[in-house]
Amino acid sequence: MDLRAFFEPKSVAVVGASREPGRPGYTLLKNLISMGYKGKIFPVNPNLKEIDGMRCYPSVLDIDDEVENVVILVSADRAVKVVEEVAERAKRRGDVRAVVCISGGFSELNTPEGRERERRMVETLRSAGVRLMGPNCVGVIDGYSRFTTNFDVDDYPAGGVSLVSQSGALATALLFWARPFSKIGLNKLISLGNMADVDVVECLDYLKNDNRTKVIGVYLEGYKESRRLFEKMREVSLLKPIVLLKAGRSEVGSKAALSHTASLTGTDALYEAAAKQCGVIRVRDVLEWYEMIHALEKQPILRGNRVAVLTHIGGPGTLTVDRIGISKTLSLANIPEEAKSAIRSMVAPTANVCNPDGYIDLTASHTEELHYKVLKVLFAQDTVDAVIQVLGHSMFLSQRLMAEKVHAAFEEVGKNLGKTFLNVVAFDESLPEFKLEMERRGLPTFPTPEIAVTVLEYMWWYAVKRERLRDAPQLYPLPQPQRPLPIKGKKVMIEWKAYQLLERYGIAVADYRVVRGINEMISAAEELGYPVVLKAQHPELVHKTDAGAVVLNIRDATELRHAADTIRRNLSSRKGLEPQEYLVQRMVNSGVEVIVGGVRDESFGPVVSFGSGGILVELLRDVTFRLAPISRSEAMEMIRETLASRLLEGFRGESRKDVESLADLLVKVSEIMVREEWIKELDLNPVKALDSGYAVVDARIISA
Amino acid sequence: MDLRAFFEPKSVAVVGASREPGRPGYTLLKNLISMGYKGKIFPVNPNLKEIDGMRCYPSVLDIDDEVENVVILVSADRAVKVVEEVAERAKRRGDVRAVVCISGGFSELNTPEGRERERRMVETLRSAGVRLMGPNCVGVIDGYSRFTTNFDVDDYPAGGVSLVSQSGALATALLFWARPFSKIGLNKLISLGNMADVDVVECLDYLKNDNRTKVIGVYLEGYKESRRLFEKMREVSLLKPIVLLKAGRSEVGSKAALSHTASLTGTDALYEAAAKQCGVIRVRDVLEWYEMIHALEKQPILRGNRVAVLTHIGGPGTLTVDRIGISKTLSLANIPEEAKSAIRSMVAPTANVCNPDGYIDLTASHTEELHYKVLKVLFAQDTVDAVIQVLGHSMFLSQRLMAEKVHAAFEEVGKNLGKTFLNVVAFDESLPEFKLEMERRGLPTFPTPEIAVTVLEYMWWYAVKRERLRDAPQLYPLPQPQRPLPIKGKKVMIEWKAYQLLERYGIAVADYRVVRGINEMISAAEELGYPVVLKAQHPELVHKTDAGAVVLNIRDATELRHAADTIRRNLSSRKGLEPQEYLVQRMVNSGVEVIVGGVRDESFGPVVSFGSGGILVELLRDVTFRLAPISRSEAMEMIRETLASRLLEGFRGESRKDVESLADLLVKVSEIMVREEWIKELDLNPVKALDSGYAVVDARIISA
Repeated sequence: MDLRAFFEPKSVAVVGASREPGRPGYTLLKNLISMGYKGKIFPVNPNLKEIDGMRCYPSVLDIDDEVENVVILVSADRAVKVVEEVAERAKRRGDVRAVVCISGGFSELNTPEGRERERRMVETLRSAGVRLMGPNCVGVIDGYSRFTTNFDVDDYPAGGVSLVSQSGALATALLFWARPFSKIGLNKLISLGNMADVDVVECLDYLKNDNRTKVIGVYLEGYKESRRLFEKMREVSLLKPIVLLKAGRSEVGSKAALSHTASLTGTDALYEAAAKQCGVIRVRDVLEWYEMIHALEKQPILRGNRVAVLTHIGGPGTLTVDRIGISKTLSLANIPEEAKSAIRSMVAPTANVCNPDGYIDLTASHTEELHYKVLKVLFAQDTVDAVIQVLGHSMFLSQRLMAEKVHAAFEEVGKNLGKTFLNVVAFDESLPEFKLEMERRGLPTFPTPEIAVTVLEYMWWYAVKRERLRDAPQLYPLPQPQRPLPIKGKKVMIEWKAYQLLERYGIAVADYRVVRGINEMISAAEELGYPVVLKAQHPELVHKTDAGAVVLNIRDATELRHAADTIRRNLSSRKGLEPQEYLVQRMVNSGVEVIVGGVRDESFGPVVSFGSGGILVELLRDVTFRLAPISRSEAMEMIRETLASRLLEGFRGESRKDVESLADLLVKVSEIMVREEWIKELDLNPVKALDSGYAVVDARIISA
Repeated sequence: MDLRAFFEPKSVAVVGASREPGRPGYTLLKNLISMGYKGKIFPVNPNLKEIDGMRCYPSVLDIDDEVENVVILVSADRAVKVVEEVAERAKRRGDVRAVVCISGGFSELNTPEGRERERRMVETLRSAGVRLMGPNCVGVIDGYSRFTTNFDVDDYPAGGVSLVSQSGALATALLFWARPFSKIGLNKLISLGNMADVDVVECLDYLKNDNRTKVIGVYLEGYKESRRLFEKMREVSLLKPIVLLKAGRSEVGSKAALSHTASLTGTDALYEAAAKQCGVIRVRDVLEWYEMIHALEKQPILRGNRVAVLTHIGGPGTLTVDRIGISKTLSLANIPEEAKSAIRSMVAPTANVCNPDGYIDLTASHTEELHYKVLKVLFAQDTVDAVIQVLGHSMFLSQRLMAEKVHAAFEEVGKNLGKTFLNVVAFDESLPEFKLEMERRGLPTFPTPEIAVTVLEYMWWYAVKRERLRDAPQLYPLPQPQRPLPIKGKKVMIEWKAYQLLERYGIAVADYRVVRGINEMISAAEELGYPVVLKAQHPELVHKTDAGAVVLNIRDATELRHAADTIRRNLSSRKGLEPQEYLVQRMVNSGVEVIVGGVRDESFGPVVSFGSGGILVELLRDVTFRLAPISRSEAMEMIRETLASRLLEGFRGESRKDVESLADLLVKVSEIMVREEWIKELDLNPVKALDSGYAVVDARIISA
């Protein structure tokens, strides 16, 4: 069933309607009218006959007309009873399709009673085929149908933005922010609340197919099925950008979120990885969230990363250029010589034309007409993908005329060529009329140079990512596990068995032999060639190195005998163990140390990781994650993200290591994590990346 | 001479006065009147008799009355002539003390003519004892005397903020930003322009002693004498905070700055280091600059780092807590049990009281009175240093009453206890009336949770730093150099001579002997004890390792002979050199590698650096700087800032290294950089930090 009845119902019953101006049950009715909703409205309140001339019904069962949507504002206990009446009605008349439960007092209380109430409500409605949004939410606003269940926002213009939020206040606060200057036009606002029935994934799926939705802003505190969520987000991101603001980066933040909507926020690093993998623009703060949504609604997505800057105020102009200069992805545009000459012929001799290249400061002797002419030249250049114009207050300029001229330049040249055009008002309140005129014309303005450049950086990231996603539009489906759990009772797999598993998947382990006595050891070492490593193998032996069960760099038989003695003594004295099996392994002295791992997350499922070995991983957490399975190009992307990649590419005159074979290794590990469902954790630490190939020199597999 | 005549002149002549409404020469006169300036105003324009009823003079020489300040608006060529007349007048009558030259067309053009005009202007005025601000500036505004030379800002309220800016437009844009909501009260605005005479240092010195200035906002693109600048900033920071926005973080940004005010921006890492060293709050962007100035004018500086958060909207509240959670310096306050009980007894059962601790979400059932009561409890707790209150739009709240109540709670409890109190309006435009009422009452509001927390982080950094500066209120004075330049012609000092220099300062070098033949080598090695290192010493030999002139880890006499042969062969074949001298040095195999260095910067003077050795420095630029000389506690601070410190503190079960002796080494290197003025660069790379002490194992000194 689709969600249409939540957004465009033909009629709505408001249970808990009121005639007291200070109550939600009153303002909601008022907002339906002030928004201009054209459907039928049925107030429900057993104590009232009418509200402002509207007939009031004792219960939803008493409404003769068809009712498609029911909004519930009464207390939690009464809400459960209302829902029973709704279900009864739906079964009898088949008209109610959607319930929006604004009321709180359910699972967010974290009490058994609250959870039970919520469970009953969902069960009752399901039995009647009625869907539920909330409880504990502010419901929906639809900018086009003009339907609303929101008691706070009394009017809002229609547009291309849809918001899906686990905090109703946050989403509506965004609208109040945007409204005075028409910064954002609204398609749909969805306040998810406790997501007892309709959840974020279903909403995203609905918005994916909603052609009026140009950009989706998501605020999330937590969601149980993260993998399902990001699979959907990946699908959506191919068609339209998602701008995600995710709470729970810190431990205390997670606690606050938990007490807010009963959401476990999940591991932040995995959210970060999944967003990167699925083309979701994850922003760092509220300002970025707002301005990204704002920019993406009004401007085309960047076609390239070359930005020209036009200003008449040197300081803010310099800061804009400076911010582009420290960007890792954007650069100033090169302006062709003819274009430079053309601009020079227009401007005052004191103007700065392209020093540095791509930057034009018209200085004090600028006019509206001059901005128009220079903008047209800039838009026309093939070498320019975006223009940032930085304007400041001036007693000598007409804000209205400037907006007209700037708009004309974009319409005449920039728009058809698909150029992205951002205007910075230095700062924010300096040019209110200009700002308003520009936003009305669909040209976004920004309060500071830095946020405008940040917006372009995210845009460009999305543009590049979206192209890559086209090759792999979905996360790979997870196959059924193929092998039964091979180790019972033992949590940690013995090393050589782990090696055998790896080898079955074609992973290259440094040559080894499993041996028992000293003679076997010596002949194994001779077969492998010295130097070798000797490691005891025992099911109880978890931290081999700490237990003194490993000797590295053994150079001959004498040293080998000595090593075997040492290990025996260590294990006997420290652990009371007498290992029967040993591993003799070829010593790999060359190469760059990296770490490859896998983990099975409750919410994200199988995950693969890659990072630097040695001190770097512990000192810097130089590690990156992806949901498994991954493609080869994703594996390459993972490697490139780490500092390890700089070491692998041939740092300080060292030879380049075989990065491609490492990518293969990552793909294989991701395959193992997907297929061997019994594995909880897998650690190849370290892996030696070599000039050709690689060698796994230690492995640890832990079962769930 | 002080700068009073720039800010509070008894009279002003405006050269280039106009009666055309669109001209600066007109709006400046108008602004003097609309600001309410009480001094005498003398328009000067040879073509006009009067402007709006004010008598107009043909030249400054024709004004009978006393003239204290002259503002120049005419073209550059004419400005030079005006200045001659001003000098003539000053010499004759002794009345003119200050000239503000708004006009451009001087050194910022980067032409010989421009520079010459500027030089002549300064020279002429100096000869008459008249000071100059600008040229190429928008002059000054004084919020108290109501004097202005600004043609853009027509009125602005007085307050505690002074702005010193190399971009006039940037400073005035800040005022336009702040004005609609009275966010910032202005003491002085100073647009420096080209700083031909009065410069940033002099202005800072003036503002240091200006009791009405509570906080100084500085925008800087570049300044030649960076050391002098930061010495002054250090002095000022002891008394009042400086919030610095510095352009030129990138290469293109530096170019843009150069073409704007002819300023070389200097090495950004040194600005960063100097700001840190001198207690200057260096912000990263315009928004931070604005909000830091805003907060510091209106609120006391943090007394501790414990923050309580109060809200009625879960989403924005959660984001606030989350942002505090990822802070490295702030933490959520622990609320004592009695206080929690007191709050619980006030609020609805659905409210979240202290989960996590320090966070209170009143939920939908809040009132103005409830905020008042809970705020009073929070302010009263010894464990709370600051409160962030996060409010959002609500149909059911009176913005005005909320502002009254919130203000009352602060006045009754928070203010006297010195608590810092920030309010977040979620977001920005959501509560215009509340915002306005709060700002009028001196309580700052912020548009997002994240910027409010960032403000507190900077505040706390400054509070801690200011305490430390009290021990060392000034940068140490630079003594005269004590020794003549010892190497002539040779840029790179030979290694063992560098060691001798280091040893004179008490620096510990790994034991070495300078030898000639193989027998000397062997007996030196025996004295030192194997293993040793052998290095050739030759004045032409700059990159020893690359030339094959170093052999490490020599274990006996045979290996030593072999090493000597190898080096001789390498140098002969690769470089055509036959070194006579060799260095035999004790091989230091243990310890953590660090790098200690010094450099003499043109603008900052002697600088000392510290960082990780090995791959970390190249991979991560893990290096930090300070202006030399440094104190021991500054040296410790440097070490703590680097990742190296984590290795030194005993990483992964390693022993802790002798950090204190490294700090001594840093102090000594800084002393060398100060005293040995001929040294351009000094590199101790690597230094081995040991369990006790350290050992320098390579040194390179380059003369200027």
